[in-house]
Amino acid sequence: MKNVQKNIEIVSQDKVIAFKRISKKFGTPLYVYFEKDLKDSFKNFQKIRAPYGLIVRYAIKANSNGAILRFYNKLGAHFDASTFNECVRLIEGAGISGNKIRLTSQEVQSEENLHYLTKKSVLYTACSLLQLETYGKALPNTEVGIRFNIGIGSALFPTSSTGGKNSSFGIFEQRDKINALLNKYNLTLTTVHVHIGSGSDSEKQKIAVHEGLKIVNDYPHVVALSMGGGYKVGGMSSEHSTNIKEVGQVMVDAIKDFNKTTGRKILLEMEPGTALVAKAGYILTEIIDKVTTGSSGKEFLKVNGGMNMNARVPMHGAQHPLIVIPRKRKNSQIKEYVVCGICCESGDILTVELWKPGVVEQRSMVEACVGDLMVIGRAGAYCASMSGGNYNSQQLHPEILVRENGKLDVIRERQPLSDIWKYEKIPRDL
Amino acid sequence: MKNVQKNIEIVSQDKVIAFKRISKKFGTPLYVYFEKDLKDSFKNFQKIRAPYGLIVRYAIKANSNGAILRFYNKLGAHFDASTFNECVRLIEGAGISGNKIRLTSQEVQSEENLHYLTKKSVLYTACSLLQLETYGKALPNTEVGIRFNIGIGSALFPTSSTGGKNSSFGIFEQRDKINALLNKYNLTLTTVHVHIGSGSDSEKQKIAVHEGLKIVNDYPHVVALSMGGGYKVGGMSSEHSTNIKEVGQVMVDAIKDFNKTTGRKILLEMEPGTALVAKAGYILTEIIDKVTTGSSGKEFLKVNGGMNMNARVPMHGAQHPLIVIPRKRKNSQIKEYVVCGICCESGDILTVELWKPGVVEQRSMVEACVGDLMVIGRAGAYCASMSGGNYNSQQLHPEILVRENGKLDVIRERQPLSDIWKYEKIPRDL
Repeated sequence: MKNVQKNIEIVSQDKVIAFKRISKKFGTPLYVYFEKDLKDSFKNFQKIRAPYGLIVRYAIKANSNGAILRFYNKLGAHFDASTFNECVRLIEGAGISGNKIRLTSQEVQSEENLHYLTKKSVLYTACSLLQLETYGKALPNTEVGIRFNIGIGSALFPTSSTGGKNSSFGIFEQRDKINALLNKYNLTLTTVHVHIGSGSDSEKQKIAVHEGLKIVNDYPHVVALSMGGGYKVGGMSSEHSTNIKEVGQVMVDAIKDFNKTTGRKILLEMEPGTALVAKAGYILTEIIDKVTTGSSGKEFLKVNGGMNMNARVPMHGAQHPLIVIPRKRKNSQIKEYVVCGICCESGDILTVELWKPGVVEQRSMVEACVGDLMVIGRAGAYCASMSGGNYNSQQLHPEILVRENGKLDVIRERQPLSDIWKYEKIPRDL
Repeated sequence: MKNVQKNIEIVSQDKVIAFKRISKKFGTPLYVYFEKDLKDSFKNFQKIRAPYGLIVRYAIKANSNGAILRFYNKLGAHFDASTFNECVRLIEGAGISGNKIRLTSQEVQSEENLHYLTKKSVLYTACSLLQLETYGKALPNTEVGIRFNIGIGSALFPTSSTGGKNSSFGIFEQRDKINALLNKYNLTLTTVHVHIGSGSDSEKQKIAVHEGLKIVNDYPHVVALSMGGGYKVGGMSSEHSTNIKEVGQVMVDAIKDFNKTTGRKILLEMEPGTALVAKAGYILTEIIDKVTTGSSGKEFLKVNGGMNMNARVPMHGAQHPLIVIPRKRKNSQIKEYVVCGICCESGDILTVELWKPGVVEQRSMVEACVGDLMVIGRAGAYCASMSGGNYNSQQLHPEILVRENGKLDVIRERQPLSDIWKYEKIPRDL
């Protein structure tokens, strides 16, 4: 949200109250998720009226906390796993039924892994010829999905495309080889997968769904088309977000048209990660220092959770809303700051030029003091899950779920410090 | 090392044999460090003939494995900690004496932390006015170091400077405020710290040491000048590395000159991290898949350890040597590949344009097959320590120390999978 008058990012008063309560009760820094927002974003997908069924698979790499997995499970979501380990985490960590999971990964699975997956009824999408061959060898005469690289990509930021000739995700052309493997192992292709990357819009999705259905047309036993995820969620208020209704309609229309010409009834699968959790999550930090480099320099605010809690900024140059919550005083003065974390790393800067990691930019916000809270928005996706290293021996920080009834559930406790070196072994002579 | 004839990166035959042994014994992926290389790089610093003493502080954020800390301790190194947690890790995790540690951090320490540090005899460098004030309040009438931002920065890559007006590291000018705090709490400034950032060369260091000594000149009780670290270690053979001998000589000469004009005998402190460990470390992976995007496209090699083991590539666009070790056959054919990891992330690419994260580039190497080993060089610094998140539910991988006598010591065991979600708590109603 944005305060247009002052041209700065804001959060609702309800959330401000919640953040103050949380910091008092649990300290800082930590991750905060709001149940209501997690639910509302899911509803956007449920509203898509796919004529022959819709499966919404939550792409758990975006945020793999067990409570969030259970929450979406309860709402009726299925799950998209990107690694074998994610399947194990879903099944053994969060108690999710294997038949609600589909594995679409960059790994070639061992025979042992494939047998585990089958035993648990996990669905499998082969993303390379070798994956297809390995699967066929281990589990001949079964059904399988295939991820196709349809030659087009979509990118949230300049380098994030996962389709096209610069991408290794999915099988590019080579239809003869695919068919030979399907024949050789008597595999039935039942799901076609055509995820094209992040940041997609309805124009790109229109092309993708048509390319996907062209492939479906070639394989008579296909019952489902997975469009993958990549639905963009803008960070700052000024950034564009994918219109889920619009993009869903594009897919629905294409599937209806396909039915008219072929009579086939294709199930639609979508795999949102970011689109479900990004805006439901925040990083709650405290301003611990204020530093200046003089009148022709900059003013810096140091917060106690930077790149170690949010790798999207140093890795992609993503912009996240940064909202100062003054502890006591009411202040409406607007000032310009550079905001940084406390890692001993010049790149630990939270205010960067968009998609330019490490390129320092000043940003307007409410005048801040040491001791004020600083909330980092759009932090539900790829923050706790993709950051979370122990760089500078920093612990992994807690995650709090704010329930609709106002209850605060700790859904991950702070990692004890000694955990960081627990698996180290020092040779006797050292 | 480079095979000039073929224009590709190589490793010595001894190392090839070691890598094969290690993969057979422990599997892949993992980190491998060579004791001899860890030692040789330290010797480069020991050879610097500082006239009034030299303390080499290993900057442990580069690689904080306890065995490596103990190893350098045995060689006579002192330690540079960048966070309070790193002090605790050194003392309680690795059994290092507090008096060998100096804390130079971006955090403002609590009174409790400061008392812990004093009790353990850890030295303290204040890096901001608030840090100096907090220290003075808790521990008046003591000695202290100060990190000064001398207005110049050095950067390994375009955005990595930690000095100058765009950097919040150290106190920029404001000498009157510094002096007021020193007076107010009767603190004696005994160490001046002027680290200017990564990638520094002797020209920049010449300026820095003179600026540092100018400050020393203003404070009669200063006994030590810390030049910090940032000594560059090229990744690829074509990249330049800082000449430690040369840069040391610049510092030695300046300290001698300073003695001539002032009679003062200043101890030199240096804080290498990368310069000690970078080239002693490798990531040992296996090629698990080979994917093509057609004749006008690219050939991709997928290895089982990418961005999750080496964040330097997706974060900075660093280039690391990539060396194929064929399992069996001897092949001297050179081919071009894009090498990528197995994270479900378009940016998990190991061959990028220099300092351009995610910008895919092809690289020449020995023709590779699935099952071959792929060694990633220059991986001793900021790989295990700065990566190591559990993205895609990947475990943290083992670290192996190859001793000079050939013994293989496991210095970190593979993290058990269930460890990843151990601190999660699922609310009862979910």
